[in-house]
Amino acid sequence: MIEFDNDFTWESDKSIDEMMQEAYQKILLEKENGVSGYFTLGEDSLEIMEDALAYAASNEFIKKSDTIVIIGIGGSSLGTKAIDSIFKHQNTDVKKMLFLENPDEIDLSEKLASIEKEKTLFIIVSKSGSTIETISIFKEIIERFSLDFADGDKSRVTTITDEDSVLHKFSKYYGIESFLIPSNVGGRFSVLSAVGVVPLAIAGYDMKSILEGASIMAERFFTKKENHILKKAVFLTKHKKETPMNVVFSYANCLEDFTKWYVQLWGESLGKIDKQGNHTGLTPIGHIGSVDQHSFLQLIMQGPRDKTVTFIKVDNFEKDIKVPDITLKFIEKTDYINGYSFNELIDGECEATKESIVKEGINVDAVTLDVLNEKNIGKLIMYYELLTSLCGIMLGVNTYDQPGVEIGKQILLKKFTKSS
Amino acid sequence: MIEFDNDFTWESDKSIDEMMQEAYQKILLEKENGVSGYFTLGEDSLEIMEDALAYAASNEFIKKSDTIVIIGIGGSSLGTKAIDSIFKHQNTDVKKMLFLENPDEIDLSEKLASIEKEKTLFIIVSKSGSTIETISIFKEIIERFSLDFADGDKSRVTTITDEDSVLHKFSKYYGIESFLIPSNVGGRFSVLSAVGVVPLAIAGYDMKSILEGASIMAERFFTKKENHILKKAVFLTKHKKETPMNVVFSYANCLEDFTKWYVQLWGESLGKIDKQGNHTGLTPIGHIGSVDQHSFLQLIMQGPRDKTVTFIKVDNFEKDIKVPDITLKFIEKTDYINGYSFNELIDGECEATKESIVKEGINVDAVTLDVLNEKNIGKLIMYYELLTSLCGIMLGVNTYDQPGVEIGKQILLKKFTKSS
Repeated sequence: MIEFDNDFTWESDKSIDEMMQEAYQKILLEKENGVSGYFTLGEDSLEIMEDALAYAASNEFIKKSDTIVIIGIGGSSLGTKAIDSIFKHQNTDVKKMLFLENPDEIDLSEKLASIEKEKTLFIIVSKSGSTIETISIFKEIIERFSLDFADGDKSRVTTITDEDSVLHKFSKYYGIESFLIPSNVGGRFSVLSAVGVVPLAIAGYDMKSILEGASIMAERFFTKKENHILKKAVFLTKHKKETPMNVVFSYANCLEDFTKWYVQLWGESLGKIDKQGNHTGLTPIGHIGSVDQHSFLQLIMQGPRDKTVTFIKVDNFEKDIKVPDITLKFIEKTDYINGYSFNELIDGECEATKESIVKEGINVDAVTLDVLNEKNIGKLIMYYELLTSLCGIMLGVNTYDQPGVEIGKQILLKKFTKSS
Repeated sequence: MIEFDNDFTWESDKSIDEMMQEAYQKILLEKENGVSGYFTLGEDSLEIMEDALAYAASNEFIKKSDTIVIIGIGGSSLGTKAIDSIFKHQNTDVKKMLFLENPDEIDLSEKLASIEKEKTLFIIVSKSGSTIETISIFKEIIERFSLDFADGDKSRVTTITDEDSVLHKFSKYYGIESFLIPSNVGGRFSVLSAVGVVPLAIAGYDMKSILEGASIMAERFFTKKENHILKKAVFLTKHKKETPMNVVFSYANCLEDFTKWYVQLWGESLGKIDKQGNHTGLTPIGHIGSVDQHSFLQLIMQGPRDKTVTFIKVDNFEKDIKVPDITLKFIEKTDYINGYSFNELIDGECEATKESIVKEGINVDAVTLDVLNEKNIGKLIMYYELLTSLCGIMLGVNTYDQPGVEIGKQILLKKFTKSS
């Protein structure tokens, strides 16, 4: 179960209901017209999950492998990594996942050195099929591990890409197993498509429950049982001038990659030129509590009133490690926490921080998961995707493109082709 | 060597020179009056470094240990972690460092399970000596590893704290080695005090060069050879309404913890109520290239014009791993990068991204390290600390306190004492 609360303070305004109603109609059209295909991935991806599991079960090499290396960047890795980071601690029998994303030599060498060819399935993820970082790292993998696709090594590799992309054509040519991303599902909305479902299912995660959670959230939203999402979108976009930043404070280290996924989803979807030609958007900032209370909280509390804050917390984390009932001479004043668990401490810090921010009159909302399980994470993913679409609608932008990154790619290409 | 460039566009204004001159006089006073003690840590910490090395050399237990566990949070760990993250890849003979920061049970259990008591020095870092997360984790360490300070275990522990703090008194009582933080050096400015110098020197890092770099930068600044820092502070604070956010884009994975250090330094120092009672500050945002080009760049390029962007890059990274000269059927269009190193690719991406952002008329500056060595990192740390102080002066705030986080601590205390 997930609960959504907010302490938004705003003047009551009859137009808000109309704005909510209008946004609802527009997102319904986006879904019905297939403007984006993510809305129904909870159901649509069940088949691809079954296919991936059947493929893994029939492939002798995958059965004996214990590691999956994902070669992908941005939307091709962030969501998968987020789910792996959350659940690997709870699942000791899943395959280890390793992510080769940045073309950073220190990072690459360390990770490459840790790979055992005989136990590793390489999954190349690129929607376009020609992402320069991804394909370059793939080439390094081919050379370093002497992969010969004509000679049996094709079962060591799987690709995930758009239909008829160059990577898809390459895969078909060599008979490499390839899973397809629906063409109307963009990178940052793709975690519940083949992009995340195939590697995570093969690794052994319970993707069925994640997909089920996503389905439930989408169904509830479209039957108007989650109107708080509409309200939050209206609130955030209506106040985009006063509070252009949304800080997500997640109270669990294992949610750090989830906040990075949120930052991409939000930033790349909403940072756009709107229909009137204006630069618009909301800036996402991700932080981890309680660590970042010691870093960013002062700025929220006393800095400019330009932020909304969202708390993500888990109610029933296991409470195994209790602060021992030890009194340290001279440091007795810390004893008030003795006998409580560390998770109770972190939870108390979350509540105390939230209260102190609310007292300052800053607009805060909270997403509370009763437990950190697959269904709740599926719901949370769909919640954030729906919220992003709704904010995009309210801002009057195309939520699903990213024209601003093209010019950098062209300059890069020129740099390397000019000097060669 | 570090180079500083900028593409700041602003109307020429005679008052700027005056503002720079005034800020210079004020920071000089801060230094001379000891408002903060960080300015001279480059020289002042040499002695504590020698003490730490002598202590480590005379302690049989430390000599055979191969791991240092730092128990600290916020300013007590971020800077040390940043330096460890940057240099551990270059130094294979240093002791391994492990950071116990967040009271998160999943993270704690994993790290605790990896600790071998016989090979580990525990360093407790807390300026006040009673940081609740830190002391609670220390208690867990005492219980789990059955530390008995009356019975010889005191050589397994070192503390770093303020003189006469409760942790200092505790240490003296048990004869535990303790290193002191100057009282006028706050947590987030403390990396070059005992806080960072002691653990990093004991681990085997070349702290002398880091301190030397910091000294050089401070000396050059105070003899007016680095006036670009003054100019940047004036520029950023003068435009705090138009561009309230500064995004630091570091092009190397190993700089990720450095950007987190910057976020704390900047956020907690500048997010304040100013002398006129107004909420002021600048919001720091850290990102890693090229990964986050696939996440945050679209927002910078087409979103609201509310950000300045700082690029941190390294010119002469080793170029060991070249993109193999392999042509993949159908994916030939990526071949333009074949034969170049991955570091040339990431460097090209940095340049291309910078150019594309500058073309948009967004204010950009760049910090370029010729190599990633200790002296340059010492300079970079001092550069950012000076820049922060100058921005604080221009904003009219107390750069060195953090009153906004106290109320949360009081609420936390009440929560646990009320219900017990």
